[in-house]
Amino acid sequence: MAPRPTDPYPELSWWGWGDPDQVPQLPDSVRTLLSDGLGVRGPIGRPRSPSEVPLVAPRLAGEVAAQLTDTVGAAHATGEHEARVRHARGRSTPDLLRLRGGDPLAAPDLVLWPGSHEEVLALLWICSQERVAVVPFGGGTSVVGGLDPETTGFAGLVAVDLRRMNALVSLDEESRLAELEPGLRGPQAEELLAARGYTIGHFPQSFEYATLGGFAAARSSGQASAGYGRFDEVVMGLKVATPAGSLVLGRAPKSAAGPDLRQLFLGSEGTLGVITSLTVQVRPVPERRVYSGWRFGSFAEGTAALRRLAQDGPVPTVLRLSDEAETALNLARPAELAQGAGAGGCLAVVGYEGAETAVEARRAGAESVLRAMGGEPDPEAGQAWERDRYRGPYLRDALLDAGALVETLETVAFWSRLPNVKEAVTSAVREALSAQGTPPVILCHVSHVYPSGASLYFTVGCAALDDPVAQWQLAKAAAGDAIEGSGGSISHHHGVGRDHLRWYQQEIGEPAGAILRAVKTQLDPAGILNPGILIPGGPK
Amino acid sequence: MAPRPTDPYPELSWWGWGDPDQVPQLPDSVRTLLSDGLGVRGPIGRPRSPSEVPLVAPRLAGEVAAQLTDTVGAAHATGEHEARVRHARGRSTPDLLRLRGGDPLAAPDLVLWPGSHEEVLALLWICSQERVAVVPFGGGTSVVGGLDPETTGFAGLVAVDLRRMNALVSLDEESRLAELEPGLRGPQAEELLAARGYTIGHFPQSFEYATLGGFAAARSSGQASAGYGRFDEVVMGLKVATPAGSLVLGRAPKSAAGPDLRQLFLGSEGTLGVITSLTVQVRPVPERRVYSGWRFGSFAEGTAALRRLAQDGPVPTVLRLSDEAETALNLARPAELAQGAGAGGCLAVVGYEGAETAVEARRAGAESVLRAMGGEPDPEAGQAWERDRYRGPYLRDALLDAGALVETLETVAFWSRLPNVKEAVTSAVREALSAQGTPPVILCHVSHVYPSGASLYFTVGCAALDDPVAQWQLAKAAAGDAIEGSGGSISHHHGVGRDHLRWYQQEIGEPAGAILRAVKTQLDPAGILNPGILIPGGPK
Repeated sequence: MAPRPTDPYPELSWWGWGDPDQVPQLPDSVRTLLSDGLGVRGPIGRPRSPSEVPLVAPRLAGEVAAQLTDTVGAAHATGEHEARVRHARGRSTPDLLRLRGGDPLAAPDLVLWPGSHEEVLALLWICSQERVAVVPFGGGTSVVGGLDPETTGFAGLVAVDLRRMNALVSLDEESRLAELEPGLRGPQAEELLAARGYTIGHFPQSFEYATLGGFAAARSSGQASAGYGRFDEVVMGLKVATPAGSLVLGRAPKSAAGPDLRQLFLGSEGTLGVITSLTVQVRPVPERRVYSGWRFGSFAEGTAALRRLAQDGPVPTVLRLSDEAETALNLARPAELAQGAGAGGCLAVVGYEGAETAVEARRAGAESVLRAMGGEPDPEAGQAWERDRYRGPYLRDALLDAGALVETLETVAFWSRLPNVKEAVTSAVREALSAQGTPPVILCHVSHVYPSGASLYFTVGCAALDDPVAQWQLAKAAAGDAIEGSGGSISHHHGVGRDHLRWYQQEIGEPAGAILRAVKTQLDPAGILNPGILIPGGPK
Repeated sequence: MAPRPTDPYPELSWWGWGDPDQVPQLPDSVRTLLSDGLGVRGPIGRPRSPSEVPLVAPRLAGEVAAQLTDTVGAAHATGEHEARVRHARGRSTPDLLRLRGGDPLAAPDLVLWPGSHEEVLALLWICSQERVAVVPFGGGTSVVGGLDPETTGFAGLVAVDLRRMNALVSLDEESRLAELEPGLRGPQAEELLAARGYTIGHFPQSFEYATLGGFAAARSSGQASAGYGRFDEVVMGLKVATPAGSLVLGRAPKSAAGPDLRQLFLGSEGTLGVITSLTVQVRPVPERRVYSGWRFGSFAEGTAALRRLAQDGPVPTVLRLSDEAETALNLARPAELAQGAGAGGCLAVVGYEGAETAVEARRAGAESVLRAMGGEPDPEAGQAWERDRYRGPYLRDALLDAGALVETLETVAFWSRLPNVKEAVTSAVREALSAQGTPPVILCHVSHVYPSGASLYFTVGCAALDDPVAQWQLAKAAAGDAIEGSGGSISHHHGVGRDHLRWYQQEIGEPAGAILRAVKTQLDPAGILNPGILIPGGPK
């Protein structure tokens, strides 16, 4: 096996989400839904080992590979097959389907694990000189094609895996700021901080595997973002290595000294530079965490309650609402779900974290609003959510195994547009899949709220056809068109990557696209950083 | 008098701050401080009418002037002397001193009042073609030289005054969003919204005269920003006219669709485009407003209390703390002040706005923290602050009349650096002015708090020398060096303009400066927008 930096945290499995032992058995009710409700035919197979995944042959010249290897040290570079497979794709369903079979996969020629900002700078300099494309690699959890750059015209592709850079550099307790390295995965960062009594409070579904650098580069939003803020709100400082040199941004919480350039690198998805250090706002580890379930008669009623809390407070730490279909599935009533019924109403999860007394005060205030807005407490639902909060991606692996096509997509819009966006996306996806003979189940929830709007997160499942990647692409395209047409943004927290580029271009238009190209040209004149990702009008 | 759009809101006086009738008489205690404590000699005179202010002769070619005039209509363009004087400078003390006397002043050749986004676009197109510099003009309240562009190499300078664009375009009550035009001054915007039951809650000291476009372009922060957010936090959408075309940014509260490009125009100070519409978060007009005074034994003790509230909550709507010297002056004990004593301790103002019950809950929570941190209530101080919250600039006019040099400057830093920044700035300014034989009085307050840091706002007063502009420049340079050297940002809410450019360049470094130049070149290839302002490495 190739040299690979190790840490005590498990890696993503090479063919799916995390630890394969955690992939659940599907309950009988779901199996019945798949076979009887959706007409799922047979299992989708997968190779037994990474060596069975065919890859496009590497083409990086030996001399350049040697130069790059020397920069990080031979112990921290490899061109071995398994490492290439592990850095070939993110974790969207199309990514997983491509790992399960098909033509030889494009993959980095070389995987490099730099240990410092200076090593990253040196790698970018060499790659610029030699016109080698670079994919900055954190946890590998992108679901928007962010790890699959376009390499036509380049002398090769290298993955710059940041996971060796995993230190808590410093902690300023007075300002409650921690400087952290980008390769820290969620649990690693939280353990280092917890030992000092602090937390970032950033818990996206990808928490167990994604890295801090990835959270920043993709503008991640966590399940507790209502309380702790989105990741782009907790980042106070950034250090970035670019082919044009280093940037150190953020010497105060907020400033009127010009545009906020931190906001240009947050969401830059590795196309403008490599984030090598982050200074983030931390908080004391909460004394208390409470998650409660609340049931509403309908999605509209539940949404009104969430809006009231987001606008007038008190704002809970976690605030989410499943629609009728998702609620039915959570209640293990898939039969209802297939019929589109919503007898179980809509389930909300409302969580509070913080100091004992603050939690109680916030909870009392929020609960009186929830009751006034028609909610009824459902105590067990909060615990069930807490138990399963990171389980979704494992379930997808099991469903793919069983022959279902399952994928998620998400958007965000102002409150007044939200019902239209939900309806437009649902109809578009339903039509696109039904037209292919595979009518889907579509679940939706609100997972992030703001005073002026909220996110919508959709889960789609149907029977897989022979070419499920092409099958999904039609649905995804319909969804993207529906989002843009109804006034949503193409992503609330997944990012743009390669998969959303078409709609992103449409969303920001010109000359906004030209701004990004100008910045890209300034910082990365050879265009080596994640070509084909994010930047409108860049390589396709 | 030239044609000039009128509205029922008073204009800035041409020689100072607002309505001259509101310039106060100085109390005897202050007069004694000026003469005995600071050695102020004689009054600083001023012209009796704008016609007495000498201006550099206009040089814009008649044909170009006619083309620009045609674009907005003859009723909305003028080259008359008084209008030129009124658009020549902002309202920093050096600006006011230059209006009071000296060589002929640079001023726009022509003042234009466009009525629409399309007219602004057309003006920018003509000016780009003809290489005419443009100063976008809102309320005219810049205190950082933001209205005094470098025009060498240009065929002339025109002011594009946005105040005709003063409509409430639309109100989305469900999302609590208002689309507003940029020329609305603070009270105008608040009146339009109050008629529908809403407020933006943005009340900087310049509130009465500054415009929404200016708030956005300069990243303004209001006195109630702890509660309502900074202006850059309430802006959800922007429409911008640039020589390269139009941008419409922001279709959701937050998004992971790439970098947040709104944050590039917020703080762009008219150098990248002209903001022609803003969509801002609004809130219901508060049922209740309460401002209370709290006294602390020392600035360090008071700062600790503010930090506790900012970090652990509950966060009041208004939160500010005067140091010992500012407290002494507020208590009308200028004698103490001249001796540097602080017998009166430090006064904090803590305000709460919102629904009745929410105000009471927040107040109870905050007051228990304030007491626990050593604070003692001082009921009258809250009312005094409310009465005088917009009075500072009027007082400056009276002090200049009396022969005192008075100016303010501000910064922001992380909490752990704050004591050093305060000490460094105070020492540097004291030394720079004492070395000129005019030892100053220096007051300071914290006016904006964040979980990770706070702003510091300094007021400096001393006897004016014969060339008070040069006298102040030495102090200002020393302050800028001290801010950068001690880890503060060169501005928390005044902006960069021309006066802070040197330190701003140092603060962001390269290649960050190159990013701004690249964006500027993309959007404004002829470089007509506010040349010499903000952009590092641009015209000096």
